[in-house]
Amino acid sequence: MSEFAKTDRNRVKRGHKRALYDEDTVHRILDSHFLCHVSFEIAGQPHIVPTSYWREGNRLYWHGASKSRMIQHLSGGNPASVCVTQLDGLVLARSAFNTSVNYRSVICFGVPELVTDDAEFDRQMELFFDLLAPARWGQLRPMTAQERKATGMVVMEIEDASAKVRAGGPGDADEADWPIWAGHVDIHTVSGSAHEAPEGAQAPLNHGVLPTYHRLRQEK
Amino acid sequence: MSEFAKTDRNRVKRGHKRALYDEDTVHRILDSHFLCHVSFEIAGQPHIVPTSYWREGNRLYWHGASKSRMIQHLSGGNPASVCVTQLDGLVLARSAFNTSVNYRSVICFGVPELVTDDAEFDRQMELFFDLLAPARWGQLRPMTAQERKATGMVVMEIEDASAKVRAGGPGDADEADWPIWAGHVDIHTVSGSAHEAPEGAQAPLNHGVLPTYHRLRQEK
Repeated sequence: MSEFAKTDRNRVKRGHKRALYDEDTVHRILDSHFLCHVSFEIAGQPHIVPTSYWREGNRLYWHGASKSRMIQHLSGGNPASVCVTQLDGLVLARSAFNTSVNYRSVICFGVPELVTDDAEFDRQMELFFDLLAPARWGQLRPMTAQERKATGMVVMEIEDASAKVRAGGPGDADEADWPIWAGHVDIHTVSGSAHEAPEGAQAPLNHGVLPTYHRLRQEK
Repeated sequence: MSEFAKTDRNRVKRGHKRALYDEDTVHRILDSHFLCHVSFEIAGQPHIVPTSYWREGNRLYWHGASKSRMIQHLSGGNPASVCVTQLDGLVLARSAFNTSVNYRSVICFGVPELVTDDAEFDRQMELFFDLLAPARWGQLRPMTAQERKATGMVVMEIEDASAKVRAGGPGDADEADWPIWAGHVDIHTVSGSAHEAPEGAQAPLNHGVLPTYHRLRQEK
């Protein structure tokens, strides 16, 4: 099993028993979502931006407006860190100190660069759409030259990364005499109703393929 | 209506029509969640950490292990940015360029400092628990001196902030002839089952109060 090296920046110091460095765990958590937060720094000022992303191999991809501060800065050889967090539950212990949340999170470090090759840009866009709505890329009205120009895509080789996972109950059985309810409450992110755009004659929505982000549970 | 000043760091440049700077909107989005991502920079390296948080007035609070890198760094007069994101849906347009997500997000800037006053620490912990599980703070086994010492709480006055909100369908009615389904699919974060810790005699869980994070929808 391949592992990310522990370096000064990715080593989990607090709660280190919850830390995992193997590529399988890191990649599995990265593949469980499409929303990340990107951290970068301009002239001593930390910035943070939420954005959609996808993964291929040991590389993260995301895109934005070519002229956005984030894309401009992160296509110039500057470092970034990227975090993906799945919130899985609230852990209600008998004490404040043991109260916690259940989660799966990954933090990745690297130096993004711009994807400049048109064929690679297209191939990555297809991978992204396969994540959001399989097979849709080939059905979309094709991108225009102007739209391509306005879209900046970056790729970040993951230089090092760490995952942190907490699951299950409060683990404070030694305080079981304290007379309040203790346990954990699940939190789920689920896909809900599909709302058809009112205008135009539409092909039917293929519920088996389209809605949507196939890793979400369907809401009953 | 009070507004945050637009500065070089909080002004939304791309998608500026979705930007909002009024305190009411910023505070409402901050109050809709308890998970944020904190961005900070140590010696040129951007870091990012997911953590729970809460708000009082125009101040954000979060806590962590006193000895964690984040708390150590952010109690030393260093700037941070904090992002809260609610993912509300996936927007499936007829083109890649108009494909989007629905969301409510806030980015806040400031310089955190350590909460050192014991009474204020307690008052803030109570506010935090009121968010997670109302009335629970008063029922918990009290914090020990050692637990207090191990817990670092920081407060960040929000110096400036911006909110960004997208809702509704794809808005590409001018391309309604393109023959694929278009619309948006909701995404919800919901609370699910409560799992009682197996050990000990427990008081019953008051479902009206406890589970949990009262802003989540209850799963059916």
